[in-house]
Amino acid sequence: MTNDRLACQLQFILELDKLKGIVRRSLLLDSHRRENSAEHSWHLAMLALVLAEHANEPIDLLHTLKLVLVHDIVEIDAGDTYAYDAAGHTGKDERERAAARRVFGLLPADQAEEMIGLWEEYEEQKTPEARFALAMDRLMPLLHNYHTGGVTWRENRVTVGQVKERMAPVAVGSDSLGEAVSAIVEQAIASGLLPNSWSES
Amino acid sequence: MTNDRLACQLQFILELDKLKGIVRRSLLLDSHRRENSAEHSWHLAMLALVLAEHANEPIDLLHTLKLVLVHDIVEIDAGDTYAYDAAGHTGKDERERAAARRVFGLLPADQAEEMIGLWEEYEEQKTPEARFALAMDRLMPLLHNYHTGGVTWRENRVTVGQVKERMAPVAVGSDSLGEAVSAIVEQAIASGLLPNSWSES
Repeated sequence: MTNDRLACQLQFILELDKLKGIVRRSLLLDSHRRENSAEHSWHLAMLALVLAEHANEPIDLLHTLKLVLVHDIVEIDAGDTYAYDAAGHTGKDERERAAARRVFGLLPADQAEEMIGLWEEYEEQKTPEARFALAMDRLMPLLHNYHTGGVTWRENRVTVGQVKERMAPVAVGSDSLGEAVSAIVEQAIASGLLPNSWSES
Repeated sequence: MTNDRLACQLQFILELDKLKGIVRRSLLLDSHRRENSAEHSWHLAMLALVLAEHANEPIDLLHTLKLVLVHDIVEIDAGDTYAYDAAGHTGKDERERAAARRVFGLLPADQAEEMIGLWEEYEEQKTPEARFALAMDRLMPLLHNYHTGGVTWRENRVTVGQVKERMAPVAVGSDSLGEAVSAIVEQAIASGLLPNSWSES
C-alpha cells in the first residue's frame, strides 16, 4: 500500500460491503426479495437528484447526497430497525452511536469526523438538507409498500394512523411530495390495503 | 398526483428498482452471493467521497457522484456485460444507447437530457470527473476479486495481462490508486490467484 492514509480508506471501503447484507422490511417492486440497505441508499440518492426541485427550502445537492449515502452505514453494526417496531427502537440511538464510532473510526481522523458529523446531522434534522433527505427516506418505503400490495403493512398490522404519522416528514421536506403521499395513502385506504385497525383474528 | 412532471419523476423512480435485480459477476466479500448493480453504484459513490483527494486532476465532487450514481442505469434494459466477455461487448453500445433513451426518457425532457448527458460523458471519458468515476468502477472489482480468493478470475480464466489492461484507467484517474492496484495485482500473482495463462485442463 502506498501510504497509511490510503490503507485506512481502503479498509473502510471493504467494511462498507457489509451494508449489502443488511436486509430491510420493504419488498422490491417485483416482490421476489426484500431490499438491502446499500441498494436502498443508492435509490435515495437518485430520488434526491430527481426530486430536489420540490424541496421547500433551498438545499445544497452535494450535501444532501452525502447525507443519504451515509445515513444507513451505522446499520452494519446496529442492524436495520423496522419503522413500526416500537420495541426495536429501545437502545437504537446508543447502538447506532457506537456503530458510528467503530465503522467511521476506520477512516483517517478528519474523514471519520466528517462522516460522523453527516450521520449526526441526519439524525438531528436541523438543516434543510437533513429534512429533505429524511423526506426521501420516508417516501420510498411508501412507494414500495403501495406498489407491492401492502404486504409489509399487512405482515406487521400497520394502520392508517401509523403510516400518516410516519409520513409527516415528507411534507416538511416538500409540500408537493407531501400532497403526493396523501393521495397515495388515500388510494391505499380505498383499496383496502391500509385499515384503521386490524381485527384480532 | 399533484402534476404531470412529478408523475413522470415518480414513474422513473419506480423503474429504477429494477437495477437491484441486475446481477454482476463480483462476489460480495462474504462470498454468499453476487453483487447487484444498484448496491455497486452506492459503493462507488462512497469510494468517490472517500478517495476524491487522490484524483490526479481537480474534480467537482457533485458531478462525479452524479456520474457514478447514473452510469449503470442503462443495464436495466441492456444487462450487465462482464468485463472479460469479449463476445458480450458486441452490440453493447447500441443496446445501452436504446436503454438510455427508454429509461431516462421516462423523465421530463430537461431531466432526461441531463441524465443521458451524464451517461454519455461517463462513456466518452473526456472529463476529469468521468476519468475518476471510471477509476472507481475498475478499482472496486479488483478489491472484490482479490479479497474473495480470485473466484471470478478462476471461473472466467482471466489472466494477469487482462487484469493489468483492465486496471489501466485507475492510474489515469489517480497515481496513488494506480500504485495500490499494482501492489494488489503483484500480491495476487504471488498468491497464485492470477496466472499468466490457464492450463487447458
